[in-house]
Amino acid sequence: MPTLALIRHGQSQWNLENRFTGWWDADLTEKGEAEARHSGELLKETGIDFRRAFASMQTRAIRTLWLALTEMDRVWLPVEKHWRLNERHYGGLTGLDKAETADKHGADQVHIWRRSYDIPPPEQDASSPHFMGNDPRYQGVEVPTTESLKLTLERVLPYWTDEIAPLVSSGTNTIIAAHGNSLRALVKHLFEVADDAITGVEIPTGNPLLIELDDALKPQSARYLDASRAKDLPSL
Amino acid sequence: MPTLALIRHGQSQWNLENRFTGWWDADLTEKGEAEARHSGELLKETGIDFRRAFASMQTRAIRTLWLALTEMDRVWLPVEKHWRLNERHYGGLTGLDKAETADKHGADQVHIWRRSYDIPPPEQDASSPHFMGNDPRYQGVEVPTTESLKLTLERVLPYWTDEIAPLVSSGTNTIIAAHGNSLRALVKHLFEVADDAITGVEIPTGNPLLIELDDALKPQSARYLDASRAKDLPSL
Repeated sequence: MPTLALIRHGQSQWNLENRFTGWWDADLTEKGEAEARHSGELLKETGIDFRRAFASMQTRAIRTLWLALTEMDRVWLPVEKHWRLNERHYGGLTGLDKAETADKHGADQVHIWRRSYDIPPPEQDASSPHFMGNDPRYQGVEVPTTESLKLTLERVLPYWTDEIAPLVSSGTNTIIAAHGNSLRALVKHLFEVADDAITGVEIPTGNPLLIELDDALKPQSARYLDASRAKDLPSL
Repeated sequence: MPTLALIRHGQSQWNLENRFTGWWDADLTEKGEAEARHSGELLKETGIDFRRAFASMQTRAIRTLWLALTEMDRVWLPVEKHWRLNERHYGGLTGLDKAETADKHGADQVHIWRRSYDIPPPEQDASSPHFMGNDPRYQGVEVPTTESLKLTLERVLPYWTDEIAPLVSSGTNTIIAAHGNSLRALVKHLFEVADDAITGVEIPTGNPLLIELDDALKPQSARYLDASRAKDLPSL
């Protein structure tokens, strides 16, 4: 049965500063690099013959994958990167730290944006210093101005369905290195988690989630590799 | 005019030990990692908008590319890896250090194998501890048992012609991270260097070679980025 491994990137500079990051291209901190290497060690110990890998277009996810593959002696795996695996776009919140956001919009409103399924924050303006729409990596891409988790899922899903799912269902063990919300969207789809339950699912960093899937891509088992830091899993 | 940047990987553990490496997957030393980062700094300073990258299937070339792209803030570039960009296969010499090889075969014979264009060393036996034919990355590949520079060129060229050349001739600035002999083969082809002159062309490590090419892929200019360590270039 093919295995899908989901790796959430480790600490970035903006995680450390407690700022809404979204599509901003914050790099890993040293701690984040160590988490990535630890993910690679755990994946190597499984002995699973991974043959393909995917990442978002964001430095923190790509470098997480590279550091993990280095630990696994698998730097030669084919790797594809795509913006559809990027983190949820936090719109006008991008760059604000959590305290600034609460001051500006009120703690209750911020809680709604973070934990609701389908309510996006205010849109980001193209004049924002954190606007990524002109970055060369997104040439030809209609960069979102804000996203709810629902909108995130709607743009992750076509890439899963068209590019990754056919590989997995044909038996290829596959790694995806991405972000809290793009992975959450994928987990919602695979485990058929309800709209009001999904924001309670939190994939830890530095602790790959291993999912075995049948030919119809229905999960048959799921486990975190570091059981000591295991969080609740969606039920199968 | 599109630019092609050739990066030769820096020092590997077996370079340090002065052993014939070929297809053996020796990793970079710390010095080799520093050379890779330096290549990235030099490429970043050019300001050239590189859009595609290629590497061999060998860890030392892939990690050289990754370290360079990290310095360049271009980890998101599409990267393709292929065995046709691998180092020349040194056959039965693989794993021997230069002194052992001279003891076993005589210094004159070793000089011939290293510096002739079309004389391959003895074949590697599949029972060699350094045989790579069973490595999972080469599944479906007929791994060579030995190669001259001529044989190396003959297997590099189809990949250049089919995969890289069309991109470059359509205007894409492209990076290739590879090895002393696979890059030498490419230089022989691009600059039409004579058989008896090519083994005198030595691309330094940690010093990218930048080549501007016209639509017909004829080199119009060529320079090493670190001019203080420039070596002789083939004439245009």
